[in-house]
Amino acid sequence: MRIVIIGAGAGGLTTASNIRKYDKKANITVITREEHIAYSPCAIPYVLSGEVKNFTDIIMHQPENYLKKDIKILTKTEAKKISRQKKTIIYKDKKGEHEISYDILVIATGGSPFIPPIEGTNLRGVFTIRTLKDGIRIREWAEQSKKAIVVGAGLIGLEMAYGLSKMGIDVTITEMLPQVAPRSLDPDMAKIVQEYLEESGIKIILGKALGRIIGKEKVEKVMVGDEHIKTDLVILATGVKPRIKLAKMAGCEIGKWAIKVNEKMQTSIPNIYAVGDCVEVEDAITGQRIMAPLGSTAVRQGKVAAKNIVGIGAKFKPALSAMVSKIGELEFGAVGLTEVMALQNGIKIVTGKVRALTKARYYPGAERIDVKMVCDLKGRIIGCQIIAKERVAERVDTMSLAISQGLTCDELAETEFSYAPPVSMVIDPIILAAEDACERLRKISK
Amino acid sequence: MRIVIIGAGAGGLTTASNIRKYDKKANITVITREEHIAYSPCAIPYVLSGEVKNFTDIIMHQPENYLKKDIKILTKTEAKKISRQKKTIIYKDKKGEHEISYDILVIATGGSPFIPPIEGTNLRGVFTIRTLKDGIRIREWAEQSKKAIVVGAGLIGLEMAYGLSKMGIDVTITEMLPQVAPRSLDPDMAKIVQEYLEESGIKIILGKALGRIIGKEKVEKVMVGDEHIKTDLVILATGVKPRIKLAKMAGCEIGKWAIKVNEKMQTSIPNIYAVGDCVEVEDAITGQRIMAPLGSTAVRQGKVAAKNIVGIGAKFKPALSAMVSKIGELEFGAVGLTEVMALQNGIKIVTGKVRALTKARYYPGAERIDVKMVCDLKGRIIGCQIIAKERVAERVDTMSLAISQGLTCDELAETEFSYAPPVSMVIDPIILAAEDACERLRKISK
Repeated sequence: MRIVIIGAGAGGLTTASNIRKYDKKANITVITREEHIAYSPCAIPYVLSGEVKNFTDIIMHQPENYLKKDIKILTKTEAKKISRQKKTIIYKDKKGEHEISYDILVIATGGSPFIPPIEGTNLRGVFTIRTLKDGIRIREWAEQSKKAIVVGAGLIGLEMAYGLSKMGIDVTITEMLPQVAPRSLDPDMAKIVQEYLEESGIKIILGKALGRIIGKEKVEKVMVGDEHIKTDLVILATGVKPRIKLAKMAGCEIGKWAIKVNEKMQTSIPNIYAVGDCVEVEDAITGQRIMAPLGSTAVRQGKVAAKNIVGIGAKFKPALSAMVSKIGELEFGAVGLTEVMALQNGIKIVTGKVRALTKARYYPGAERIDVKMVCDLKGRIIGCQIIAKERVAERVDTMSLAISQGLTCDELAETEFSYAPPVSMVIDPIILAAEDACERLRKISK
Repeated sequence: MRIVIIGAGAGGLTTASNIRKYDKKANITVITREEHIAYSPCAIPYVLSGEVKNFTDIIMHQPENYLKKDIKILTKTEAKKISRQKKTIIYKDKKGEHEISYDILVIATGGSPFIPPIEGTNLRGVFTIRTLKDGIRIREWAEQSKKAIVVGAGLIGLEMAYGLSKMGIDVTITEMLPQVAPRSLDPDMAKIVQEYLEESGIKIILGKALGRIIGKEKVEKVMVGDEHIKTDLVILATGVKPRIKLAKMAGCEIGKWAIKVNEKMQTSIPNIYAVGDCVEVEDAITGQRIMAPLGSTAVRQGKVAAKNIVGIGAKFKPALSAMVSKIGELEFGAVGLTEVMALQNGIKIVTGKVRALTKARYYPGAERIDVKMVCDLKGRIIGCQIIAKERVAERVDTMSLAISQGLTCDELAETEFSYAPPVSMVIDPIILAAEDACERLRKISK
């Protein structure tokens, strides 16, 4: 069986490795435009901040590692054409154009940064952030910079802003919406993250659009609302759009946002699969088609695709968009719907909210923890947001499991959690938030 | 309604506070033999180790705090007799004997240390550990000691041993069974904890019983197997037995180990409830009656008892014995059955095992993490053990939820977890262990 995978990000490479895990004979070729493969793009901000020393540290494997597993990786190579009839791909490398045939094709072309349609985005000193090369270029430019503007207060924007500020740069974040992390957190929770960033010396301008970027050859200032701000560097962290050109060319059905796939990660063409940021998925709560552009999701999709390709079979479950980020010392995460998203989807809800501690209050290093739980009026948990200086990610995972199992706040409140003073409270903050939601439900139903 | 609660530990006081939460009028009296109330006995070892400074730090509330909530607490007061016919209790304080009547009685008498039937346990310098007073006395004695023996390598024994060694004392642990933490961990996992303790300078003697304690007036040496070991201090951490004398006197049915209660935490006498270390519970996996003497369990039982007493209704679910401990930097936890316990119960199993990292491998501070998952031959997860220098407790909680929901390793492996390089691996070690279990199952079923 001849398998060609286009894209060597988390989705593509996971598919490749997992096919090899189950099938020692399959002929596997991965095509990527990039020079570097198997690196962790999520880690780029942490190289800027100095928490990780070098960009080379975040490269997990070299193409040779894959060759040892008999997986051929063609770097700096671009797929140009797919013929679904002939089952061939035309790709181009520095030597010219070549043709390769496939039995199974996996499209893992990922996404590309969305560039807002404004003036000046092509000036020197204006960057988008997606690849390792972007990271290297930004750091080089930043080393010569005093002031930076980060456009967009999503996770990547916030992480990049913090990274740049740790380089000693005076950073301003601008965000069109009136809060930071608008896709992950409700306004009340986002406020906590915002305050932490502001205490770290980062300026934040909310509710104002970036008008244009101004400069002669390189960026000199930006216009935000009706204000001019001088800057040496602009990062456009304004979202990602799926790269679906090749899939379209092959005739794969495109959904509301991106490539449509079934639960096997198969496109509308049975021998073409797609995984990662170029596909849309089903939201586990609303049933709607959504984008879930997360590395962890791409990995899970790659595993599912591989199992189906080799015939073991597996299903990709609707997404809960479980996420976590760490900025400086502050960890924040979310899973499922926020209160705002629930209301936008017409779901009536109650929330449970608690401010507690990460461990027994007398234990040194106990940190404040904020938990907000969102439940529908039957008590079913549909979302949770958590912020603290430690131990957030695993609580998000617990909540992801709770939500995927359809637990009510009552059922969660009864669940047995572990306890020891150096690591937890005798009643976990998650349980306290669930109990709070139960109380509010009880009051409503009276 | 007149409610009397005997015992002011986690179970008794949680019951009291929760009754008050729902019923502003109930007349609530708590009787306790102890001088101190509302302290965290689990924290005593951490005062010895110096991680928590003072014994007073671990007292969460004073009796006056409860009086403000109109809960009367009688300290240094012992319940002597219960008459179920007259619905009265005779108790004794320094002023003499008194009688109090009740509509509802809650027995929360806890447990007392099990003292092995050997010579010398009454010598000075030999301690059991249960109450704050025990902790204070041990620290005073330890300040004059050079060598200590801790008998019993259960959690409390290990934690006390580490605390004493941090005081600069030369500590030896002796354990009859051939491993440390025999109730929580399998031998392969226990080895990791043992090695950590040994690297911390603690000696461990396994598989040998304590013969006798020798000394004239105070302890001078102990006999372990056929070896004499000199010591200034002996801690008997040889288990807890439930205090059930009063319950027996009242005519409450006693089960295999302790007071029998239904899922409402009601004893065989409808207006007498019992919670905490003095009751036995149902094991969620085997269905057998077991002891689950954990502070977190007592708290959950107290909440359930309170809700039933005020008429809201609640059920205490069968126990999974989710536990966690931290010794020095090492955190270890477990939930459900170990491999050994499963086999003892005649359950055929496969295990999934993984040694991974707590965060992305290039991220500074990534720590080794060991996970062992136990599944029955249908893949249903029935136990899990986790050891690492961080982020164990919350993973135990995730596993507790997974087990209580009856998840198979396949289902867990498909679950969406959050990811960011500073806080997690792109595939969580729990998921890796579940995948390993799935692989082994697949091989067996072939």
